[in-house]
Amino acid sequence: MHFAVIARVLGVLLMIFSMTLLLPIVVSLWFNDHNYMTFLWGFAVAFSAGVAIWLPVYRSKADLRTRDGFLITALFWLVLATFGAVPLFFSNGLDLSVTDAFFESVSGLTTTGATVITGLDTLPPSILFYRQQLQWFGGIGIIVIAVAILPMLGIGGMQLYRAEAPGPVKDNKLTPRITETAKALFTMYLVFTFSCALAYKIAGMNWFEAICHAFSTIANGGFSTHDASILHYESPAIMMICTVFMLIAGVNFALHFFVWREKSITHYVADAELKFYLTWIVIGSVITVAYLASSKTFSLHDSFYLGIFNFVSTMTTAGFASNYSSFPSFLPYLLFLFAFLGGCAGSTGGGMKNIRVLLLYKQGMREIHRLIHPNAVISVKVGKITVPDRVIEAVWGFFAMYVVSFAAMFMVLMATGLDLRTAFSAVGACITNLGPGMGEVAAHYGDINSPAKWVLCFAMLLGRLEVFTLLVLLTPAFWRR
Amino acid sequence: MHFAVIARVLGVLLMIFSMTLLLPIVVSLWFNDHNYMTFLWGFAVAFSAGVAIWLPVYRSKADLRTRDGFLITALFWLVLATFGAVPLFFSNGLDLSVTDAFFESVSGLTTTGATVITGLDTLPPSILFYRQQLQWFGGIGIIVIAVAILPMLGIGGMQLYRAEAPGPVKDNKLTPRITETAKALFTMYLVFTFSCALAYKIAGMNWFEAICHAFSTIANGGFSTHDASILHYESPAIMMICTVFMLIAGVNFALHFFVWREKSITHYVADAELKFYLTWIVIGSVITVAYLASSKTFSLHDSFYLGIFNFVSTMTTAGFASNYSSFPSFLPYLLFLFAFLGGCAGSTGGGMKNIRVLLLYKQGMREIHRLIHPNAVISVKVGKITVPDRVIEAVWGFFAMYVVSFAAMFMVLMATGLDLRTAFSAVGACITNLGPGMGEVAAHYGDINSPAKWVLCFAMLLGRLEVFTLLVLLTPAFWRR
Ligand SMILES: [K+]
Ligand SMILES: [K+]
Repeated sequence: MHFAVIARVLGVLLMIFSMTLLLPIVVSLWFNDHNYMTFLWGFAVAFSAGVAIWLPVYRSKADLRTRDGFLITALFWLVLATFGAVPLFFSNGLDLSVTDAFFESVSGLTTTGATVITGLDTLPPSILFYRQQLQWFGGIGIIVIAVAILPMLGIGGMQLYRAEAPGPVKDNKLTPRITETAKALFTMYLVFTFSCALAYKIAGMNWFEAICHAFSTIANGGFSTHDASILHYESPAIMMICTVFMLIAGVNFALHFFVWREKSITHYVADAELKFYLTWIVIGSVITVAYLASSKTFSLHDSFYLGIFNFVSTMTTAGFASNYSSFPSFLPYLLFLFAFLGGCAGSTGGGMKNIRVLLLYKQGMREIHRLIHPNAVISVKVGKITVPDRVIEAVWGFFAMYVVSFAAMFMVLMATGLDLRTAFSAVGACITNLGPGMGEVAAHYGDINSPAKWVLCFAMLLGRLEVFTLLVLLTPAFWRR
Repeated sequence: MHFAVIARVLGVLLMIFSMTLLLPIVVSLWFNDHNYMTFLWGFAVAFSAGVAIWLPVYRSKADLRTRDGFLITALFWLVLATFGAVPLFFSNGLDLSVTDAFFESVSGLTTTGATVITGLDTLPPSILFYRQQLQWFGGIGIIVIAVAILPMLGIGGMQLYRAEAPGPVKDNKLTPRITETAKALFTMYLVFTFSCALAYKIAGMNWFEAICHAFSTIANGGFSTHDASILHYESPAIMMICTVFMLIAGVNFALHFFVWREKSITHYVADAELKFYLTWIVIGSVITVAYLASSKTFSLHDSFYLGIFNFVSTMTTAGFASNYSSFPSFLPYLLFLFAFLGGCAGSTGGGMKNIRVLLLYKQGMREIHRLIHPNAVISVKVGKITVPDRVIEAVWGFFAMYVVSFAAMFMVLMATGLDLRTAFSAVGACITNLGPGMGEVAAHYGDINSPAKWVLCFAMLLGRLEVFTLLVLLTPAFWRR
């Protein structure tokens, strides 16, 4: 392990992150909401900490290897979540405990969108803006990590994307490639965010709210400036804009990048994961709309908009305004189940990712064919690419660890005294980075006990870091020379 | 497919099964409970059907291949469950609907032990005996299939046991081997049943109840002649006898056979699955007893007996008298979770089987080590045997299909109107062949709706036939030439 270089990288990242705290200061001064000191302090603390970490080691140089990659990735989120909590903790209007401030910060950065705060409509604009920007920066962080770093670390089958990532490929050397890739992805991210904000503005939001919601839409985050979230506007147009951009944000950004660079949609058409993702979006939306309409839960008109909006919001794990938990019969569980499918790899969507579920399905079908034809050699293909068994094994490992982590955290939440529905849905909504759960955590996470909140923070990070990035750090073998 | 030979085998098996219906007639005459006509009719119907299936094809001969094996195995359970339901349907004292009679029959033969019948204490002895014997014959059927047939079909990694099964090995030819193996296993089964009955008798049961409970104990079935089940006797001695024999019945019978044949326990000591199984039994029992005692749910004395008994009863999926659903806090879910671990392969225990979970764990650890050492070649070993990747892939396939089937059936049960706890635990208790669930199905399954019962029948068969035996029949590829 190159601890000095790791510290240098983290120090720099923390300094960069501290700069982002200047934005809410601008917002605060613009709206004159008397809250800028909070963020100035937040900036000062984060920046000084960054310098303090960076300064002793700023001359350190070494090529980072995969093992360092795990540690940097995990520490990156942990450190940012910690310093991101500082302004929330010190804000006058909020009165959050340490637990709640950290929970909200983790929830923001991981784009989970589970909130402990109520009464959003009356909060100072700077705080509202800050929550949205946490998600936005979290979203681009996730994309860069998913597209540029995880494939090289080989987590959960993501080595499949190793050759695909934009930027020059230089195996085992992380730095040069990441910079190139990050630039390209950030450009895409900016373009989508701006388009989304513009669409919201045209549909009737003011610029502030349009930008705020564009931030959390493109991040598939789900934070809003209103307690009623997107439904506050009672506008089918806004719901549909939100739906479209959640869908776009749930697609692999590397794919968007290729389409943009080569000015050709053949990449979209050829992508097996995208096809799988859209197929389930359509099937799920149709079932939801049909059941809502036929059970007379809403009028046909409302069933259409609310059905599609809620299904997409749940499956992409944006988790906007999801009143899915109040849907009748099996619908809440159906929608909830699709959050485990989630977005595509390299998107801001959560869950297990479509490509993994697609691979599991194909491998499952292969097993059945092998039973019928025991001696046949059958390979698993995604599109035209034959998937190496090594990748499939990694995906199985991912799936098993996902299930085991889920069961373990569910058990701990039950032990803290939560009821079945709450514990079950809270773990699911956090590990998939969906956000809203059912039962006591349908509207917000403010009422559950503190130990449960810490477990859920772990769940959110576990989901966001694709399980293995965190789990590998907990094994003694990782720390051995 | 050799349909004629399949019909011949099924016809013979059905005729043999019909003979077992003569036993309750003896019981009925002995106790003079005026119920013998029911079973005489049941016998007549099953025997005639067997003859009718067998006669037109009794000269058919062909070596059966694996594909025929799937069909025979699945039809075997389906046909027996159907004809096993006949006496239950026609019994005067019961008044069961078609659904309920079939449910009870499937539950018996799959040794699930989920019952729709209440007021057991007042039923005619012949009916009580019949339910117990359904489980007993189901139990030996499962062992023979698991030890002799599934390894050859290669289901869910069970080819691992291909070389181990007793009897001469002749690949792809099922018949001669199965007969030899079945004899050896049946002997073991008889010895254990007799020992168990004797122990119960000595501990205070009368011979009838001792035999009845020995039947369901060795089958890990969980049916009883009393509504309060084993707890009816209020005897720690009986609880401990039950615990010991549930544990024995949860071990691979091929292993018992080797130990018995070679008069040496080295086979027990060397078996990695047995070690894994006993480790979890000890850990789980300690947690259960400790929590029951420290939470003052029971006295220390009762915590000890009830804790161990209930944990073993749940993990081996015997499901006797499980008042586990009334345990405090997370305990019901912890015990329930261990039912998914279940017994060892080749035992009467249900669940996913210890060997599979052990393999998944080892593969999970391998993935983590591969992340740390990307270029190392790491093999998965169980005991001294290196497990082929092919087997591990099959286990993953099994695991995924198990999870997917669970989720799908859960969703359907929710749609029929069951509440979360009931739907969740009913599917789990049936697919693991545990029996008792939580919520509305904690005591019995009599109060839930008919469609739900049919889904649960499917769940019981799916669990018992190791998922793939049934699923493979549902694929078009299976039926193609
Ligand atoms: K979210
Ligand atoms: K059982």
